[in-house]
Amino acid sequence: MTLESPHARGDASTVAGLRCLVVGGGGFIGRTVCAALTRSGACVTAFGRSVPEAGNDDVRWVLGDAGDDAALAAVLERQDVAIHLVGTVDPERSNLDPLGDLAANAGSTISLVKLARDAGVRRIVFASSGGTVYGPSLWERIPESAPTNPISAYGISKLAAEKYVAALGRLYEIEHRILRIANPYGPGQSHTRRQGLIGVAIGRALQSSVFEIWGDGSVVRDFVYVDDVAQAFVRAIAYDGPQIVFNVGSGVGISVRHAVEYIYEACGADRSLISLRPGRAADVPRNVLANDLIAGETGWRPLVSWPEGIARTIAWMKTR
Amino acid sequence: MTLESPHARGDASTVAGLRCLVVGGGGFIGRTVCAALTRSGACVTAFGRSVPEAGNDDVRWVLGDAGDDAALAAVLERQDVAIHLVGTVDPERSNLDPLGDLAANAGSTISLVKLARDAGVRRIVFASSGGTVYGPSLWERIPESAPTNPISAYGISKLAAEKYVAALGRLYEIEHRILRIANPYGPGQSHTRRQGLIGVAIGRALQSSVFEIWGDGSVVRDFVYVDDVAQAFVRAIAYDGPQIVFNVGSGVGISVRHAVEYIYEACGADRSLISLRPGRAADVPRNVLANDLIAGETGWRPLVSWPEGIARTIAWMKTR
Repeated sequence: MTLESPHARGDASTVAGLRCLVVGGGGFIGRTVCAALTRSGACVTAFGRSVPEAGNDDVRWVLGDAGDDAALAAVLERQDVAIHLVGTVDPERSNLDPLGDLAANAGSTISLVKLARDAGVRRIVFASSGGTVYGPSLWERIPESAPTNPISAYGISKLAAEKYVAALGRLYEIEHRILRIANPYGPGQSHTRRQGLIGVAIGRALQSSVFEIWGDGSVVRDFVYVDDVAQAFVRAIAYDGPQIVFNVGSGVGISVRHAVEYIYEACGADRSLISLRPGRAADVPRNVLANDLIAGETGWRPLVSWPEGIARTIAWMKTR
Repeated sequence: MTLESPHARGDASTVAGLRCLVVGGGGFIGRTVCAALTRSGACVTAFGRSVPEAGNDDVRWVLGDAGDDAALAAVLERQDVAIHLVGTVDPERSNLDPLGDLAANAGSTISLVKLARDAGVRRIVFASSGGTVYGPSLWERIPESAPTNPISAYGISKLAAEKYVAALGRLYEIEHRILRIANPYGPGQSHTRRQGLIGVAIGRALQSSVFEIWGDGSVVRDFVYVDDVAQAFVRAIAYDGPQIVFNVGSGVGISVRHAVEYIYEACGADRSLISLRPGRAADVPRNVLANDLIAGETGWRPLVSWPEGIARTIAWMKTR
């Protein structure tokens, strides 16, 4: 029993019947969000540049580029909710092309919010980056109220995109939520593209290949299982309370070195294949997100532990 | 006597002989910054789209558009310091064209910092907007550490530009300072263009024209005299301490209604020409900047009081 209404608590049942558009629905997080939404009874349309091999029959797939305003406008028609997942994915490359990164992340967000207004969309949920918008932080677990001083162009463009969602959402009277996601991992994550350390490490471990950790491996990150991330979107759509910005993380810090060693061990791979390579560009030493706000406001909690999540991801990757 | 070194305190004498480029040197703030820098013994080049009618003979004027990378690169050569003053000026119009505003403020900043790196510039001082980057705030006098939640596209693009100056400056090893300027006013401010309330109000009062205040006039702003703003740039160039972001404001809050009534009185104009016009888009009710940080770190203080500043501005505008 809880004193709050189920709606304010982000009860998944309130999502049933809502028409939800997942922009970037074909990506790693997008596919999982689509699956979680259909399970909650939402009517889901996915928009993206490619349809996943293992499609979801309950999802209506629309091929298109999020940079194509006309295509996006057409698919936004008659939607209740827009989930915005598109953007660049590589913080490091962003520093080589800050202007392109700015257009891809902040520019695309401005366009999406304007088109959502024109289409009469009632709510937008935006996927921001809890791993980069804060920058260096002294917090053991960073709260949403912490200063935001990104050290990568990627972090800046995601932060700017957040601010546009908030300011234009307010101006256009569109409800809006911003999820600052930690480092998501899980089934569906590429082992070849740079979508994250975990996918690459499992791929290498299963092939008994070498894995080079840049630096001394002491940097601490917050790895969150992708199904938990997807559930946070469901909760954010259902949530009717006053908060706008939520961290979405496990709340647990794991060093990069420990994470890779754990994965090699779990895959039965030789840990001596892991080596340290000094000289990487400076990174923030620690980034672990406090998740008390989303827990208290919506009832969301990460349900899949690190050992369980890694076991599931390894099992999935073995089938590839 | 002070215990700090004159350099760390931002003593203007350390600016003597420095080669300073003022990008946007022909504008309202730019002209005053050029004058203050030449008085401090700096070798000043001003770059902008127009040369002011009353030029400063000690300044080298170079005509050009800040969006022209080749022209900017040429003029950045052999400079020690770049002062970045270009961008859009109208927070309200920014909401009608957020993409254009983003390119003009954040995009231009990325380009400038990259070109400054290529030219070997040692320090950048960026003019940000203390009136818009904070957004709604509960602070009586807003400190630099306050949350930054702009409600206009202009505030977002200026905030993003700040973050690029900091992140790219760090990456490229260019020293950088960010000045969050309140509402500057003074001689040189246009009475026709929307560069600020004070210039327009004095212009109308001197012509005995009507002045419509949108809303009830209760919004409180921080008006800072332009010569004081210019001195803050001189201090920021000389300052060698650890702080990056400084508010530059009078620290005094004045309601818009009081400001306009004061100006009409000072001009000998009929106060009944002032009227209230309801229905303006929501604005933040109060924006007054704490200026303790820049005072403590650099010794800067606003020297021109409101009555003195308004008297000087009226006297100047009467000569136009």
